[in-house]
This record gives sequence, structure tokens and C-alpha cells, in this order.
Amino acid sequence: MNKKGVLVVFSGFSGSGKGTIMKKLMENHSDTYALSVSATTRSPREGEREGIEYFFKTVPEFEELIKNDEMLEYAQYAGNYYGTPKAYVEQKLNEGFDVILEIETQGALKVKEKYPDTLLLFVTPPSADILYDRLKGRGTEEDDVIAKRMNQAVNEAKVIDRYDYLVINDDINECVSHVHEIIKNTHDRTVFKADTIEALKNGLNKYQRRD
Amino acid sequence: MNKKGVLVVFSGFSGSGKGTIMKKLMENHSDTYALSVSATTRSPREGEREGIEYFFKTVPEFEELIKNDEMLEYAQYAGNYYGTPKAYVEQKLNEGFDVILEIETQGALKVKEKYPDTLLLFVTPPSADILYDRLKGRGTEEDDVIAKRMNQAVNEAKVIDRYDYLVINDDINECVSHVHEIIKNTHDRTVFKADTIEALKNGLNKYQRRD
Repeated sequence: MNKKGVLVVFSGFSGSGKGTIMKKLMENHSDTYALSVSATTRSPREGEREGIEYFFKTVPEFEELIKNDEMLEYAQYAGNYYGTPKAYVEQKLNEGFDVILEIETQGALKVKEKYPDTLLLFVTPPSADILYDRLKGRGTEEDDVIAKRMNQAVNEAKVIDRYDYLVINDDINECVSHVHEIIKNTHDRTVFKADTIEALKNGLNKYQRRD
Repeated sequence: MNKKGVLVVFSGFSGSGKGTIMKKLMENHSDTYALSVSATTRSPREGEREGIEYFFKTVPEFEELIKNDEMLEYAQYAGNYYGTPKAYVEQKLNEGFDVILEIETQGALKVKEKYPDTLLLFVTPPSADILYDRLKGRGTEEDDVIAKRMNQAVNEAKVIDRYDYLVINDDINECVSHVHEIIKNTHDRTVFKADTIEALKNGLNKYQRRD
């Protein structure tokens, strides 16, 4: 009996540490997780490899994927398409991997609409002040960029209640364990246990007395 | 900020070990869990204490509770009423306890209808054969009683897919830890994080630039 993986969408404010969480999650449990690879129409940058960082597509190729309903979600930024091809995700799910998508809120909600069993996780620092301090503390960002990120966070916060879980990133290692636990336990939701329930029913029927 | 508890309904086949799981859960974590006390119209047996094993009610008292919508769920067995009074459950939830109801499937589904945020857990042995062996192995049951319990299990299995989680009781201690983990993580579901989300939104608004 092949166990199908869970589709996990991971979102969070810029500065929430979600990139680090994903990285550690993959490092600690590479046997259970697969990271979804996005497709894009922008040109590869130095060192970016086809199928690793991105699937690189031409605009007509990308639009063909959209037309054939082969994208889980997609959006346009700065004149380029970005999106999640279904084929790769479904292949990995069928191989039994829990597939993680790191995408922004609008894409996340679109995926949940199409696949209601998707696990939506949102990660946040303990408070807005700490988020600001973390962005500021990076030291690499202009004040303008920080202000833009804080504004973006306001918009993202509006849809947190449509996520399944809100995870606080206070201590990074605790947070990674916690996220792993939530995903692991999701396998015991009855929606993912159809085979087990069927086997139980069949087993019980053998004992049923009709008198 | 007072953290409200999670309402947990725990069901399982007779012979699934759910009684032992509940007992160990309460022993290991008496600071976080409260067991719901049922009301009944049957007479107290030797040693049963009011408010500990049951709340003992007269038939008119019980029917008054029903009429005033003060029962979470109730049913009649062998001419007596049995049910879950709301008042006790709500008091314990407001005190921050996770309140556990050990009730059968029909009652469980009624509770979920009234309180959609209820966590429904169903526990089962690994297979129907193992369930049968466990019932048989108790040595105290007549074949008739065992057959009746297996028949009842067939009916209960029909609604497992309406529960949130299906937990396999293979090793009892692992199962107890697992159930505890599921309940603990439920606190991070966004439906239970309304206060945190509100605080985040308010915090972020202070940083919003309108230009």
C-alpha cells in the first residue's frame, strides 16, 4: 500500500525566518520531504540550474501550462510569470513525499481552493516589533525596503485566519521541530487514512453476525 | 490573556483501549486536561460520587436541562438518560483546560455539529483481528457479548471518516504520547489563535506607512 504524501504550503512575513525553517526541515528530514520547484519565465541567474532552483520556461510554454490547467497556482511579478507546476508536485506526492511549497498568501489560498486537504502553515515572529527588529538587524536593507516589507506584512496578516496553523518562530530549532510534528500528525487525519479505514471495515465485516 | 482550552471528543471501539489511554493521559498531564463528567438519571452505584463519576439527576431535572439547551449531547440507554452538561465543560474550557469527552459516535457527531472547533479523535487497534483477540483475551466476556461488540464496531466504523484523526493503538505509551501531541498542536490552529492574530495585526498597523 503506497502512502501518499501531504501537500504543505508554507507562508510567512519577509523576516519571519521561513527560509531557514524550510532549509533545516529539509536537512533534518530529507527522506520525508520534497521541496516544490517553481517555474518561471525570467532568465536564469548565474549558477541557477534547471529543475533545481527553477524550471525555466518561455512565455508561450508557461501560457500553455496555464491553458492546460497544469499549474497549481501562478502569478506575475515585474513582467515575469512565476508558478507551481502540478506534475512535479503530484509525482513527489505519489512517491510518498510530503511536498512543501513556499509561496505567498494569494497563491496559498488558490492551492487550498483546488486541493482542500492541503496543510496551510503560516509562520510569524512573536510580535510585529520583533519582526521590525529582525528586518532592521539584517543591516542590509534600506529603510524604504523595510517599510515596504512591513506594509506587505499588514496585507498578509489579513488572511492568516484562512491558514490551518499559525506557528510562532521564537527559537528556530523548536520551531522546526514543531512544524515537523504538525506535518507528521497530519498523516493521521482521517482524510489521509482512507486505506486504513477501508481495511478496518473489511476486517470487521468478517466478524459480523447476521442473526 | 486567558487561553481557552480545546474541546476533545474521544471515541473508539470497545476493546480499543481508549479507557486506558484516557487514564494515562490524565495521569501524565493533569495540569492541562479535565475529564468531562456526564449526567445520568440512573441511580448511583456503590461508591459513585456526585460530580466525580456522574452528576446524578432526576428525570424532570434532566428533561429541564434538555429543554433549556444545557446539554451538549444526550441519549437514552436502558430507560435512563445519559448526557454531557454544557456548564461544566464550558467552565473548564474557560479555565484553560483541554476538556476530554469520552462518548460514543452519535454523541460525538452531535457535539461537532454544535461546536465545529471540537477535535474528534477515534482510536482503534491495528486491525479487526487484533480487536477480536483483545476482546477474547480479556477472558471475562461471553461469546455473545464479544459478538455484540464486534457488530457494534461495524456500525461505529461507518462514521470514522467524520472524525478529525484516526489513532492506532498498537503500543499504549506511544499512543498516549501521540494523542497528547495531536491535542497540544491543535492549540496552534488559527481558530484557536484569534487573540494572537489580532495582536499581530494591531502591532503591524503601527508600522504602516500611508504615503
